Amino acid sequence: MKVYIEPIGKLINEFSKLPGVGAKTAQRFAYKIINMTDSEAKDFADAIVNVKSKVKYCSICGNYAEEDVCDVCKSRSSDTICVVKEPKDVIAIEKLNEYNGVYHVLHGTISPLDGIGPNDINIKGLLKRISESDVKEVIMATNPDVEGEATAMYITGLIKPLGVKVSRLAHGIPVGTDLEYADEVSLARAFVDRKIL
Amino acid sequence: MKVYIEPIGKLINEFSKLPGVGAKTAQRFAYKIINMTDSEAKDFADAIVNVKSKVKYCSICGNYAEEDVCDVCKSRSSDTICVVKEPKDVIAIEKLNEYNGVYHVLHGTISPLDGIGPNDINIKGLLKRISESDVKEVIMATNPDVEGEATAMYITGLIKPLGVKVSRLAHGIPVGTDLEYADEVSLARAFVDRKIL
Repeated sequence: MKVYIEPIGKLINEFSKLPGVGAKTAQRFAYKIINMTDSEAKDFADAIVNVKSKVKYCSICGNYAEEDVCDVCKSRSSDTICVVKEPKDVIAIEKLNEYNGVYHVLHGTISPLDGIGPNDINIKGLLKRISESDVKEVIMATNPDVEGEATAMYITGLIKPLGVKVSRLAHGIPVGTDLEYADEVSLARAFVDRKIL
Repeated sequence: MKVYIEPIGKLINEFSKLPGVGAKTAQRFAYKIINMTDSEAKDFADAIVNVKSKVKYCSICGNYAEEDVCDVCKSRSSDTICVVKEPKDVIAIEKLNEYNGVYHVLHGTISPLDGIGPNDINIKGLLKRISESDVKEVIMATNPDVEGEATAMYITGLIKPLGVKVSRLAHGIPVGTDLEYADEVSLARAFVDRKIL
């Protein structure tokens, strides 16, 4: 005899596809859904379907958008372009309320080991934007890992000859950390990139 | 400017209703959905809707069922009834593959502080089952907390005069624990309920 009746087993199976969700957690989630009202469960299901049908990619920057062009590209000056790996990086930066320029989402980073070359990510779109409008600065905000650094270097090599200022997010020790506990690589970078006061 | 576009914000909001899911986790779940194929997302949404429309409660035992009577009540002898608080307790016991009788789900425990009295949980159904069929033993498997104990006591008081054997799950130190780390209440119960070898 199977332990779960079929609709419950199926829902648990779906929930366990989510990142970091194991069998026990998926079971808890399923019970939560069972104990929701019909309309709450329907709203939940609708939110999933809608996110697939309504979310597109901005034709300019590649970020998530409800229309052809995203709100950021519509409303801000394109003087400065911040280049990121994924749409979620845009959200992380937007949450700061610090940056007022536009973005360019690469949808990946160069990673020869995974067979991802420069033509597999959205670099062409970036070059096109730079050639077509008056961009003053490009901020490379790819992750500070091997692939992110390599991608930033590669793109810098393409953009610099066009006379555009290219910058990279600062690396160093995180604010609030004890030097004692800072990782060695970050500490070393903090020394190299030290600021004259 | 809002950080998330509306369909994504809505989905994150839905996910954060799940137990133990905060803003960051809900965001991760939402990204996972966005990166699913349309049909995968549809399957997910359907599983949620189906669990609400297809899952009913067994008219005999109160467990989850797809039809009017659950598979357990249909296929097993009702000599022994195991009384539990919630349908998920049935699943926990079924996973053991140890118990071969039927269940009775109370859908709650007596808890005067929360305003839940004996008439608010499914005790009447249990008495009816006992009076109508030849039940030999009732196993009280409510949780070993104050409400669970009180409920077990209360039901025992009602059933015992009917001449039915009533038992309670054994309490004691969990298998595999060091005595040193066992909680005091369980250790005390293990002494009181010690078994003659």
